[in-house]
Amino acid sequence: MSIERAITRISETIGDRLKTSNAIRKEHAKSEAHYPEHLPDAVAFVNSTEEVSTILKICTTENCPVVAWGTGTGLEGHALALNGGISLNMMNMDQILKVNSEDMDVVVQPGVKREQLNDYLRASGLFFSVDPGANASLGGMAATRASGTTSVRYGTMKENVLALQFVTADGRIIRSGSRARKSSSGYDLTKLIVGSEGTLGIITELTLKLHGRPEAMSAALCAFPTIDAAVQTVIATIQAGVPIARMEFVDSKTINILNGYSKESMDCLPHLFMEFHGSKASVIEQAELVKDLASEYQASGFKWSHREEERNRIWRMRHNVLYAYKAYYSNCTLIATDVCVPISKLAQIVHETQHDIENSSIAGPIIGHVGDGNFHSTLMIRNESEQDLEIANELSHRMNERALRLGGTVSGEHGVGIGKIKYMEEEHGEGWDIMSSIKKALDPKCILNPGKLLRQN
Amino acid sequence: MSIERAITRISETIGDRLKTSNAIRKEHAKSEAHYPEHLPDAVAFVNSTEEVSTILKICTTENCPVVAWGTGTGLEGHALALNGGISLNMMNMDQILKVNSEDMDVVVQPGVKREQLNDYLRASGLFFSVDPGANASLGGMAATRASGTTSVRYGTMKENVLALQFVTADGRIIRSGSRARKSSSGYDLTKLIVGSEGTLGIITELTLKLHGRPEAMSAALCAFPTIDAAVQTVIATIQAGVPIARMEFVDSKTINILNGYSKESMDCLPHLFMEFHGSKASVIEQAELVKDLASEYQASGFKWSHREEERNRIWRMRHNVLYAYKAYYSNCTLIATDVCVPISKLAQIVHETQHDIENSSIAGPIIGHVGDGNFHSTLMIRNESEQDLEIANELSHRMNERALRLGGTVSGEHGVGIGKIKYMEEEHGEGWDIMSSIKKALDPKCILNPGKLLRQN
Repeated sequence: MSIERAITRISETIGDRLKTSNAIRKEHAKSEAHYPEHLPDAVAFVNSTEEVSTILKICTTENCPVVAWGTGTGLEGHALALNGGISLNMMNMDQILKVNSEDMDVVVQPGVKREQLNDYLRASGLFFSVDPGANASLGGMAATRASGTTSVRYGTMKENVLALQFVTADGRIIRSGSRARKSSSGYDLTKLIVGSEGTLGIITELTLKLHGRPEAMSAALCAFPTIDAAVQTVIATIQAGVPIARMEFVDSKTINILNGYSKESMDCLPHLFMEFHGSKASVIEQAELVKDLASEYQASGFKWSHREEERNRIWRMRHNVLYAYKAYYSNCTLIATDVCVPISKLAQIVHETQHDIENSSIAGPIIGHVGDGNFHSTLMIRNESEQDLEIANELSHRMNERALRLGGTVSGEHGVGIGKIKYMEEEHGEGWDIMSSIKKALDPKCILNPGKLLRQN
Repeated sequence: MSIERAITRISETIGDRLKTSNAIRKEHAKSEAHYPEHLPDAVAFVNSTEEVSTILKICTTENCPVVAWGTGTGLEGHALALNGGISLNMMNMDQILKVNSEDMDVVVQPGVKREQLNDYLRASGLFFSVDPGANASLGGMAATRASGTTSVRYGTMKENVLALQFVTADGRIIRSGSRARKSSSGYDLTKLIVGSEGTLGIITELTLKLHGRPEAMSAALCAFPTIDAAVQTVIATIQAGVPIARMEFVDSKTINILNGYSKESMDCLPHLFMEFHGSKASVIEQAELVKDLASEYQASGFKWSHREEERNRIWRMRHNVLYAYKAYYSNCTLIATDVCVPISKLAQIVHETQHDIENSSIAGPIIGHVGDGNFHSTLMIRNESEQDLEIANELSHRMNERALRLGGTVSGEHGVGIGKIKYMEEEHGEGWDIMSSIKKALDPKCILNPGKLLRQN
């Protein structure tokens, strides 16, 4: 293996867009999580699919690791160059290539960011629905199978990527899927690449589903005496076929913190934050129906509004949760968790997790995409304390074990990266070996994002 | 390779549930399509996942082909034992293992049929949405990535299979996915197996999404002066965010045939048949909105009703299309086609196809799942005429070429099987080689359903 020779050959191809300065390498060595830095040997700022293909051919010949880089907002260290090599910065490939309004799809390059796309679409009456919070690149969101608050209605990246262009380890440029809405023609390579975290190929173009902006939206929130009551309301709502657009759980601790941060006076009880999309009549009907359902579970203070300022107030609060945490726990490093279980097990796992956290010496407020059974407890490490980190790791470990015991998954939306590898065998059994077989078939030298997702030999 | 030795060893395992009589082999040698018969050497009626595992281990050792058999209703010859070997009859594995009402999912064995499942669910308020017409087995529907009239709203098998148990060629029993509604934990093996047509593994258990029975349903139909007007109405409806449950196109020729068969007097024009699901208020609102949209495209005779008998009348007509064809073209063999394109190209491809068929000497009325861009022209072969068959094959070929030229796929829902292999290279390019690499990694001896979907060396 000669990373050095790879660097020479790549710089012959893309000239000074291959950077080896310490400053730039350091920018591509960090993640938003608490993982240690890993410097790539060089950073390649690519401009085209053909360049990606050329670079991957070189890297396969030279046995040089390659890991794609987007906005660096991943939470499991996906984009860290664990074994050095090339960090492939995709952010120059930021063109929105074609909006097909009649078909409600769009073709984009992987460096296009989520907000950039929705700004571009604003006048079209269409929008791209997946919203993981961060203003991530769409290539990165596909690679990690991202989702967020709206996936209960509009789906995750899995449901919203129609087609891909990607480059294999040996430099072949592959097109998978098409703009047709469905197909039974062959293996679904698109769905295999979505969520493969850069280990099977580098995504160089995406065709994404768009949705029509609803005629009307309304937002609601209400409090519940218990977590169980909130979850039962969610189950009843989904069973009643209400096409709810957002359904977010916020625990009493977070409500308390938000009251301070956002100058609110909500009761310190578990809350649901909700959004309804549809026609004017339908959003009223949906809100009234959910209000009735919630009242059966002793909900209090049910408020809903289709006034834009009120809607914005509610969602601003929800989106500010992370900032509110950071302000409240100002001396803390935050560690995210990400389990997801069948909805019927959600109250139980949130209960047990809260209890476990309360019995520890650290804080861990909880919010959740409760319509999907996915929740995040954010664990607070004071002053980079080693002891707190150890406690957090243990709490997180027990949470993951609990999710698997209840028939769930260790990652609802953040991905595997480095952080969740240790649970893959338990979650997938011999299925994990099947993943390795596929990896070996498509990237026999293991140059693509080594050290992530798969068993490390 | 010793098929004979495999048969001896399998019969030692499952006793007289391994059948080698000509009568039973012949029952497993036919398809619903026009493909010639292929007799398996033996038929194994399996009772359990463990038996499937044992049989596959034997078949891998003995290099003996294995192909799963369900209801035999596939339309592309998927289940034909092209190279002989074992036909694995899955229909004894017909247990509905567990309904999880709160989570709206169900765990079934692969031999459970679609109607059996919905009968079983009747009292629960839940239903399984995928409806390909035939009363197929759920294992077969997953293997071929089936869909049908309701997929515009509820999705295809791809969206409705949450988790699988499957057995690999070497007999490993794999669980993929979970009952959690979403996951970012590793490669999506479930979506890889769905649509792999028995070439990567044998499905032995499925966890399926269920949907809540809507409070109200209404059905509608109306006529349009042109195909284009009908398609523009579809596009406008979807863009307006109407969550339409069914949206079926029926051409004027089919309307004429249905008038005779069902004693109706519809205008001989292109029609849309539609269904709306939701609350009582919402199905009225949806129908009125679509009526307004349709009127902008010169629709005539828009009728909608939420009365059950009227709904049933409309859908009975639509479901009777095949019988009506068979009665009208009583001396004919029917050949199905199955292209799917982006919706914006649908009017063009239906036009060109109709024109092509009119210029030929055979008949080919058209119906379509128009909300998905998928349509079927049924080509009529008179008295098993070789000449008609040749003309049909040429028409079908031009239709497939047209679909690919317009950015679509040669199969919207029937699958590849034998019939569509010749288009795989053109549709997928080097992506087809990637499929072969995956196949080789998981089934190196190619014992699983040889001769289908993949490049034949």
